[in-house]
Amino acid sequence: MSSDKGMKRREFLKKAGVATVAASTVFAAPNVHAAPKKYKWKMVTTWPPHFPVLGEGADLLAQWIKEMSDGRLDITVYGGGELVPPLQAFDAVSQGMVEMGHGAAYYWAGKSPATQFFAAVPFGLNAQGLNSWIYGGGGQALWDELYAKFNLKSFLAGNTGVQMGGWFNREINSINDIKGLKMRIPGLGGKVIAKAGGTVVLSAGGEIYTNLERGVIDATEWVGPFHDYLMGFYKVAKFYYYPGWHEPGSGLECFVNKAKFDALPTDLQVIIETATMRSNIWMLSQFEAKNNLYLQKLINEHNVKLKMFPEDVLSKFKEYSDEVIAEVTAGDAMSKKVYESFSKFQKDVGAWAKISEVPYHKFSG
Amino acid sequence: MSSDKGMKRREFLKKAGVATVAASTVFAAPNVHAAPKKYKWKMVTTWPPHFPVLGEGADLLAQWIKEMSDGRLDITVYGGGELVPPLQAFDAVSQGMVEMGHGAAYYWAGKSPATQFFAAVPFGLNAQGLNSWIYGGGGQALWDELYAKFNLKSFLAGNTGVQMGGWFNREINSINDIKGLKMRIPGLGGKVIAKAGGTVVLSAGGEIYTNLERGVIDATEWVGPFHDYLMGFYKVAKFYYYPGWHEPGSGLECFVNKAKFDALPTDLQVIIETATMRSNIWMLSQFEAKNNLYLQKLINEHNVKLKMFPEDVLSKFKEYSDEVIAEVTAGDAMSKKVYESFSKFQKDVGAWAKISEVPYHKFSG
Repeated sequence: MSSDKGMKRREFLKKAGVATVAASTVFAAPNVHAAPKKYKWKMVTTWPPHFPVLGEGADLLAQWIKEMSDGRLDITVYGGGELVPPLQAFDAVSQGMVEMGHGAAYYWAGKSPATQFFAAVPFGLNAQGLNSWIYGGGGQALWDELYAKFNLKSFLAGNTGVQMGGWFNREINSINDIKGLKMRIPGLGGKVIAKAGGTVVLSAGGEIYTNLERGVIDATEWVGPFHDYLMGFYKVAKFYYYPGWHEPGSGLECFVNKAKFDALPTDLQVIIETATMRSNIWMLSQFEAKNNLYLQKLINEHNVKLKMFPEDVLSKFKEYSDEVIAEVTAGDAMSKKVYESFSKFQKDVGAWAKISEVPYHKFSG
Repeated sequence: MSSDKGMKRREFLKKAGVATVAASTVFAAPNVHAAPKKYKWKMVTTWPPHFPVLGEGADLLAQWIKEMSDGRLDITVYGGGELVPPLQAFDAVSQGMVEMGHGAAYYWAGKSPATQFFAAVPFGLNAQGLNSWIYGGGGQALWDELYAKFNLKSFLAGNTGVQMGGWFNREINSINDIKGLKMRIPGLGGKVIAKAGGTVVLSAGGEIYTNLERGVIDATEWVGPFHDYLMGFYKVAKFYYYPGWHEPGSGLECFVNKAKFDALPTDLQVIIETATMRSNIWMLSQFEAKNNLYLQKLINEHNVKLKMFPEDVLSKFKEYSDEVIAEVTAGDAMSKKVYESFSKFQKDVGAWAKISEVPYHKFSG
């Protein structure tokens, strides 16, 4: 059997026109090989440099990739504005000016409204649900289809968990209290507030505090207790509302120039993909581990009033959210296709949560 | 500035007794280097070969490690019994007979009762909570301390999510219905059933169906709808109870012989750690994506009666669980230390869940 194989191999080499002497020279070559190709890449992000959890996670993502590749894929991370403005990260990677980006897909709603379903949907999937849809429910294939149009390939690379509803300078006792409210709230959530009669104000992170202090806005949403504490909002607004109906588990993403990604050897491709999944689980763990500690500081040290939105207000927000999503999907075929998959999946994990996570929280608290 | 640096470098080389000519020879060396060392490892598991999700996940873990290391760390995966019996995996890796294992830490309660806190605790942390404790709340350091005593290093490498309460051949209407009940339920959950007057029967996976069919047992727990469907329990027991109070988010682990792990180059160490985190998030996503589909098949195609344990039964289970945990921690200093960290963390994430995940599930369903 083995000699037969040997003969076949010799015949193959002859047929292929390869002199056996040359072949044996190759096999007897010293135990060295060419140094593998090294890649110097850049990652632009939508976060301030080294921003807690989000920027730190991008830094760690680059570090893990460098360590796993033994330095062969060496990525320099740039905070928003260091190389390009935060909201130009998508174009910079799409056009190949840099190889990689880190942000949240809903920032690119202007490119395609369907991007929003890969970040946060009001009353949509939470972190565990989004992961399950992307990794186990067909979400990644739809994301690949959408981003390929922009010469991009994207991976989940973080999650904030359920966010908070936001900071308000007055109590919200009924849906009528939203009328005339000037609130900083971007994305689909903003469209819901507008439907409820509020005025949506968009402002960059660095301007929110001053706008709230000066009454340019009456309310703002941000992230959760840890990040909201760092922003100091408790000094200028006392009512802190939950839940974050508009962002129940915002997915963060690492997007890569597709041509550059496809040109990488397989080991580096798998290293990037695997590192993003580590980043995903690492970020959510950081948020979850810190949120209650900072929530207690806000309540006990800074006299913040923690309040839940009244149930009829949440019901109205849900009704308006359904309308907003219907409008988005009616106007864009890809949004319709993505949301059909997203909402069918949410129905399934939701039915399962009713007999798993829901009673868990009720009896393990 | 740069010439100054150059001078310092030359001085350094002189002081270090390195001839500059030799140094430049090194720098001018041809672009080749020694072929990196290759490792052939074995991974034993506690699962049947290629078992859905659990065994498949172990196979994928080995595949990702091989791909990321470009074949330098090549791990052959063995199902339970193929190389050593499932429950000897811990010893086999601890003693260096094989390099790696995949299982669940509560299988090793006989080695140290503290292992159980890294897998499942009745009314303890769910999947998201366990991840947050391990990756963001100090859990990994305690796990390292515990396993170092056995020459092991372990990583989370999967999670089942909230399990089901189990299959019963009769209804459970009060805690008295547990009296005399013969149930297959291992671990801390089994101790709770024993306190409630039940008879705990231990049987390997392959024997459960026949035992339930023949009345050797009246009830059994297993995993969740997907895996329970595959076992065919619906043919021999009709009452399917939730929630899985005894296993609210069972962590699965990849454990490595510590001496072998420490001897690996850094890139392969980081590759293993990162691959386990991918495995962790991948497995939970598979369970979450499939559980409702199989739950509906059980109910609609096989006439299974889905039931929730009565609230007073769950309250009693909780009371007995607290007693069981108090007994375990009173008898073992390391268990006490680990559980103090675990329970403090659970209190924090539980308080946060009350205003995040709990209202999320209520209003997004």
